Amino acid sequence: MASNTFGNIFKITTWGESHGKAIGVVIDGCPAGIEISDSEINSALALRAPGRNPYTSPRTEADKAEILSGVFEGKTTGAPICIIIPNKDADSSKYEPIKDLLRPGHANYTYLEKYRIFDYRGGGRSSARETACRVAAGAIAVKFLEHQGIKLTAYIKQIGNIEANINTTDFEILRGSTYRSPVFCPDESATEKMTALIEQAKIEGDSLGGIIEFIAQGVPAGIGDPVYEKLEANLAHAMMSLPATKGFEIGSGFRSATMQGSEHNDLFTINSGDVQTQTNYAGGTLGGISTGMPITGRVAFKPTSSIMKPQGTLTTSGESASFNLPAGSRHDPCVAIRAVPIVEAMTALVLVDAILLNRCARL
Amino acid sequence: MASNTFGNIFKITTWGESHGKAIGVVIDGCPAGIEISDSEINSALALRAPGRNPYTSPRTEADKAEILSGVFEGKTTGAPICIIIPNKDADSSKYEPIKDLLRPGHANYTYLEKYRIFDYRGGGRSSARETACRVAAGAIAVKFLEHQGIKLTAYIKQIGNIEANINTTDFEILRGSTYRSPVFCPDESATEKMTALIEQAKIEGDSLGGIIEFIAQGVPAGIGDPVYEKLEANLAHAMMSLPATKGFEIGSGFRSATMQGSEHNDLFTINSGDVQTQTNYAGGTLGGISTGMPITGRVAFKPTSSIMKPQGTLTTSGESASFNLPAGSRHDPCVAIRAVPIVEAMTALVLVDAILLNRCARL
Amino acid sequence: MASNTFGNIFKITTWGESHGKAIGVVIDGCPAGIEISDSEINSALALRAPGRNPYTSPRTEADKAEILSGVFEGKTTGAPICIIIPNKDADSSKYEPIKDLLRPGHANYTYLEKYRIFDYRGGGRSSARETACRVAAGAIAVKFLEHQGIKLTAYIKQIGNIEANINTTDFEILRGSTYRSPVFCPDESATEKMTALIEQAKIEGDSLGGIIEFIAQGVPAGIGDPVYEKLEANLAHAMMSLPATKGFEIGSGFRSATMQGSEHNDLFTINSGDVQTQTNYAGGTLGGISTGMPITGRVAFKPTSSIMKPQGTLTTSGESASFNLPAGSRHDPCVAIRAVPIVEAMTALVLVDAILLNRCARL
Amino acid sequence: MASNTFGNIFKITTWGESHGKAIGVVIDGCPAGIEISDSEINSALALRAPGRNPYTSPRTEADKAEILSGVFEGKTTGAPICIIIPNKDADSSKYEPIKDLLRPGHANYTYLEKYRIFDYRGGGRSSARETACRVAAGAIAVKFLEHQGIKLTAYIKQIGNIEANINTTDFEILRGSTYRSPVFCPDESATEKMTALIEQAKIEGDSLGGIIEFIAQGVPAGIGDPVYEKLEANLAHAMMSLPATKGFEIGSGFRSATMQGSEHNDLFTINSGDVQTQTNYAGGTLGGISTGMPITGRVAFKPTSSIMKPQGTLTTSGESASFNLPAGSRHDPCVAIRAVPIVEAMTALVLVDAILLNRCARL
Repeated sequence: MASNTFGNIFKITTWGESHGKAIGVVIDGCPAGIEISDSEINSALALRAPGRNPYTSPRTEADKAEILSGVFEGKTTGAPICIIIPNKDADSSKYEPIKDLLRPGHANYTYLEKYRIFDYRGGGRSSARETACRVAAGAIAVKFLEHQGIKLTAYIKQIGNIEANINTTDFEILRGSTYRSPVFCPDESATEKMTALIEQAKIEGDSLGGIIEFIAQGVPAGIGDPVYEKLEANLAHAMMSLPATKGFEIGSGFRSATMQGSEHNDLFTINSGDVQTQTNYAGGTLGGISTGMPITGRVAFKPTSSIMKPQGTLTTSGESASFNLPAGSRHDPCVAIRAVPIVEAMTALVLVDAILLNRCARL
Repeated sequence: MASNTFGNIFKITTWGESHGKAIGVVIDGCPAGIEISDSEINSALALRAPGRNPYTSPRTEADKAEILSGVFEGKTTGAPICIIIPNKDADSSKYEPIKDLLRPGHANYTYLEKYRIFDYRGGGRSSARETACRVAAGAIAVKFLEHQGIKLTAYIKQIGNIEANINTTDFEILRGSTYRSPVFCPDESATEKMTALIEQAKIEGDSLGGIIEFIAQGVPAGIGDPVYEKLEANLAHAMMSLPATKGFEIGSGFRSATMQGSEHNDLFTINSGDVQTQTNYAGGTLGGISTGMPITGRVAFKPTSSIMKPQGTLTTSGESASFNLPAGSRHDPCVAIRAVPIVEAMTALVLVDAILLNRCARL
Repeated sequence: MASNTFGNIFKITTWGESHGKAIGVVIDGCPAGIEISDSEINSALALRAPGRNPYTSPRTEADKAEILSGVFEGKTTGAPICIIIPNKDADSSKYEPIKDLLRPGHANYTYLEKYRIFDYRGGGRSSARETACRVAAGAIAVKFLEHQGIKLTAYIKQIGNIEANINTTDFEILRGSTYRSPVFCPDESATEKMTALIEQAKIEGDSLGGIIEFIAQGVPAGIGDPVYEKLEANLAHAMMSLPATKGFEIGSGFRSATMQGSEHNDLFTINSGDVQTQTNYAGGTLGGISTGMPITGRVAFKPTSSIMKPQGTLTTSGESASFNLPAGSRHDPCVAIRAVPIVEAMTALVLVDAILLNRCARL
Repeated sequence: MASNTFGNIFKITTWGESHGKAIGVVIDGCPAGIEISDSEINSALALRAPGRNPYTSPRTEADKAEILSGVFEGKTTGAPICIIIPNKDADSSKYEPIKDLLRPGHANYTYLEKYRIFDYRGGGRSSARETACRVAAGAIAVKFLEHQGIKLTAYIKQIGNIEANINTTDFEILRGSTYRSPVFCPDESATEKMTALIEQAKIEGDSLGGIIEFIAQGVPAGIGDPVYEKLEANLAHAMMSLPATKGFEIGSGFRSATMQGSEHNDLFTINSGDVQTQTNYAGGTLGGISTGMPITGRVAFKPTSSIMKPQGTLTTSGESASFNLPAGSRHDPCVAIRAVPIVEAMTALVLVDAILLNRCARL
């Protein structure tokens, strides 16, 4: 209903258009007592920043988030936290020539059908710029989770046909190698192939799809809710609310369709006194509730819709036309790359919410 | 928060355990004026009924749903509609011997970790029996959608490695051939291979995974909401809230990761005066809002967790044990099959909700 | 939005019409581990039962509630609890003659304007019979509160011009004398005058208004939420959602308009090591959050709309007509009396919800 | 749950502390196509501005609200509207000396009990400054309502023992005389007495309570929802969520307790072809749904808690202390006066929400 709100207890509401005055997020229901500062939020934002490397869009704006409320003497107070991120680099004039064209793969047609009005400047509300607000809110969620001993990360699992080979479960190594890679891929060899593929797509003025894998470690058993608030349902909702996503998997995902029950069932075992499962095809949940094993899944991103090639289209009044990206437009050859910190943020938001709600599960 | 509620405006709340007195659903927010009867709901339930054919679980109970409220003189009144489905075939005694064992692939461990108490009889609240309530509510949703000229169906797309070949977009043909197939697969040749595969799994006491595809035709452009209430986000949430689901895709899904933008972008065109797209990799939405093209996607189901083979496990107090399905247990070798009408129901629930909410989009 | 749901965490959804097959309630979000039985719920229902004494409506039906789900081996499991109360005494034929008349003080006109259809039998969904479901759910809420050391009660404070004089703060005495009084008024002398007034109204075929006071003791300081979820806002919402209510007050209420700040401010003091206030004009909250003092307020009920006197009205097609209550109709000369256990139930529901939500307030 | 959010469809979320960087509101679910500008919002804010006259607090800051999102080319787009109001006049140093004292009638004690941390500067989040955000959002709601032909106003009905005599139902006259009065009271003679009373209270360093009456004209029959979303329940919730409110009434309110059914029942009649009631004791609703008659009620405000007299209190560590308002503190001798535009705003917010939701009532 509230299409700009996510979460049940730890609830975020984002606002703002790509080329408006600012974007921002209000976090309602954040527990009191979490230490947080502007700089921690800006560090999180820096990871998703465009212009970080040649493989993402060269928008040069360095986002500077500012906490406007809900934090006092360095700690959250339980009051709503508003974080604002001003829009600086917003030359909207170049969007004028295309404002009456239906953009292939973009949402201006559907927004116009729904609302009869569309802020076309930089994609307005439909722009992926909204996701910066998720990262800002996610930074606070991550602080909460760290306090509970939970760590999470995400990385590029696949770009085009190049699949990463992940051979560690050590969280620090995994996260370290991810953020050293210009394409957020912890597999060095795959990183090389991916960068080559991206270079080629840039030359062709084309774009690539990809897959992000996320993993959360340290989530205790018993977190998440049955039926409609299953952890995997909320994760799927979270991920499929991101722009450009086309698919979501948990654990074995679509591969499970080709497996047999005797193979897929994760058998319980005791490890150092803890109940664990020998395998984790489930991806860390059973019946929507955490098993204590790592929570892991994947998100598919389509190739960036904005490409440098001309495309046939229609005007808003239904006449044939050619669509060309305005000169000087940002062009992100593979939108999945920049989405890595965003997938992390969404994972964190889902987990915080489930952990808080879990406090109400028993007398 | 309300883990047994789904929907924003057209809101369903389900209740009941597999072997309790009854299960049921309350639909709040159903518009007044929809014609509906017990028998229409029971017809919908009959489709998912176990025992319909040898390829699903032989539970012989014929569900008899009864509308207890919210309908007067054959029409919905706007008041909450409670539908009750008594549990008849519920011999719980056979669950006694396994009540202190962690069931591989089942949720008794996670429920116990969360609540410290678990109604183990037939899986209690975690049983797939809950989905009958979704089908009952979905039957009303479908009546609403038909009134808007919207048709929807779902079918088995894949079981194990056998993939169906769908070569019609004619809704009536598609739906007809689906429900003639004992495995709800519209491709006759694939049906034969699938049934053979299932026979083999039954002999082995094992189970199979599968993929269901859904499609909704006639949804006008402009339906659905931006950001966190995107149609695909709500569909993903809906589907991943079903038991045994491991993945969700819309349109091109995971395949999009290997595509290029120039291929994936669906180009706009005029067809008999209507704006359409030449391809439909998007699966019927852009920016979370419908384009007017068919809304289509897929859901992956893991192989049934209940298998006839013995499996190693733990007792609830952590000791090694062997898990054997109680003699006379129902055994559904491929849970995906019976899920076909449920996926239809969830699609219908998401669409009704979006269509109602859309009435508030403009001044 | 969900007009038949109340609460945020401990969430009730009621359903059913006065003369339908049954009424009922689904409680979602009830913590696991609360001991509850059918008989406890039926005891609570017995208090509000009509026919308990000559001063309330002589409907002779003894409600028999049955828990259908969510309770296992005598305890709540965390799953949704459905409680059903069959309708037995439902002769609807007498409503036939008045089905096309606008009932003065009743909701059939407004329901018809909203929905274009109305189940007129016994008032359908608009009947106060719905409140039985609140009492049933409230019985579970009370069990939870008792576990937290919280006690609550309500009683008739005023009927017509007769005001009760309450001179005890001892909970047990107060509650005992309330439920010994045929009009739920703990003041014996006022009870006598009230019963006389009611007898007179019965003779005249007329009805009386009244005021109920509620009080909750033992609520610790710090419960309730700021701004839009203030305890008093939720209590007001709860009470004004009851049929026939016209006003709500907390603490000093409307009298505060004539007071000065120096008189109204409750000064803090230490009592046996606890922070308390010397007076309690606030009624137990400051800024919407509990102070630890008793939470107390009042609810005004209009005189019963159904009276035995003929009244001028219109037909649904707008023609002048005379409205006469069908012979044999139940007639409750003062609806406030039967509302006493309902006001208790609503108080309990608000408090449980606030206490559960409070568990998420701090890191 | 979301304690800083109000509304179901037209949903506002407010944020900010009295002496923080800014306060603001996000409106989610606002229909597209409403014309709105910064200046219209600032006009609404000017009405509640302190310093408007000698009878309200002399805070000199002129609020300057700015729309940051959701409006394009002068019209709402359906995207979330963020309105920010910077805090200019915020010298917090004078709050230092009282930061460790429990403020009589204020919320610092209860916030500390709940959150263990409190932004004491100017009352932080518990300050009535939050209500400016409600007025800003209300200004948009009013634009929507005007488009539907609905007009609303509020005024001072009583201060101390002085009650206004309202002898017009003409909306323009009523509203005009209200906003000409320095105390927002449309009765000139009462205004004189009220101002004298306030002068006296100022001299004494004391404060006064009051009652505001609101009225909405032009609401068609059939608006509002049954049971828990009754118009009066939502209005009560709205009003009792305002700081300093102690009571709410609709129509006859508490007076109904002393009335008889034959008097209180509003009889239906035809007036120029429209169904109306001869009286309006109901206050414009039956069963929670509008009758088409004016929707009217009253809200009681306690005397301002901040008074110039010294008061005994405790320190946060429980020691006896004397509380003195810091020199130079703003002092509003009657908080009800400034609340008049706020009550209007809350009325508007409730009505917009009900009107939008009503669009989903029927097939």
